[in-house]
Amino acid sequence: MSLFEGAIFRVERRDGRDVVVHRPAVAIVAVDREEHIVLVRQHRVPAGGPVLELPAGLIDPNETPLETAHRELAEETGLHGGEWTEMATFFTSPGFTDEKLHLFLATGLDQGEASPQEDEEPEVVRVPLAEIPSLLDGCDDGKTLVGLLFLARYRDL
Amino acid sequence: MSLFEGAIFRVERRDGRDVVVHRPAVAIVAVDREEHIVLVRQHRVPAGGPVLELPAGLIDPNETPLETAHRELAEETGLHGGEWTEMATFFTSPGFTDEKLHLFLATGLDQGEASPQEDEEPEVVRVPLAEIPSLLDGCDDGKTLVGLLFLARYRDL
Repeated sequence: MSLFEGAIFRVERRDGRDVVVHRPAVAIVAVDREEHIVLVRQHRVPAGGPVLELPAGLIDPNETPLETAHRELAEETGLHGGEWTEMATFFTSPGFTDEKLHLFLATGLDQGEASPQEDEEPEVVRVPLAEIPSLLDGCDDGKTLVGLLFLARYRDL
Repeated sequence: MSLFEGAIFRVERRDGRDVVVHRPAVAIVAVDREEHIVLVRQHRVPAGGPVLELPAGLIDPNETPLETAHRELAEETGLHGGEWTEMATFFTSPGFTDEKLHLFLATGLDQGEASPQEDEEPEVVRVPLAEIPSLLDGCDDGKTLVGLLFLARYRDL
């Protein structure tokens, strides 16, 4: 039973609970050839202000998660190439939504030209990997914390 | 403008976007006196199956996040006492919801009697801290990944 139908999610009643049915998403821990992590800062209406985040986006119906990750990273930052592996896949908030996030690690990325969508104006932020411990302190986005913490663990930062 | 009104969230139109307005929540990285982390496994309707998670719950209107954390941990696991600190506060998925999660670390906890709510039947799972690296592999909940990764970082696991 559908209770609300929107552009990126709908609300359904399942087993007596209201569930936000949401398209799955990807996020990328993007490390370029100069060993910087590349993040984006953008205004998020639900957050009421700017949020510093991993590059991310929704999976189109005809895409694999990896295809989406390549496309979104190139659109938002211009980065391409490199070595890709899957880091984790998790529910963002399984108490009320089925949204699943596929997290990728991409390293050795080459710089190119960004091509943001009209409704996106992300500011690209490059940070040396050595500064990840201080990034962790101010981070207020769940998927970005997961990505930064996994990277810090892999690289002993 | 409210588009949908449910028990734990509503949907509003803000700046041309559909936003899930959700009560803030807490989660607890709970370590008992025997140096086990205490997790709960419960069926999550949105996930379509059981999810192994940090003890967690929604903040009541008259509570501080820390009060909620003490109450939820005692209800779900019986654990109480110990030393408490705040680990992080973050948006669970700021692209579509304002839900904010307050993450606490509680150590040296004493065992007591759980008193789960009628609609909750969590299975309590105690895991030695040394097994956290293998827990990370199978974890599919965002807040739990953040908590386990921070704990692994603090304790050099």
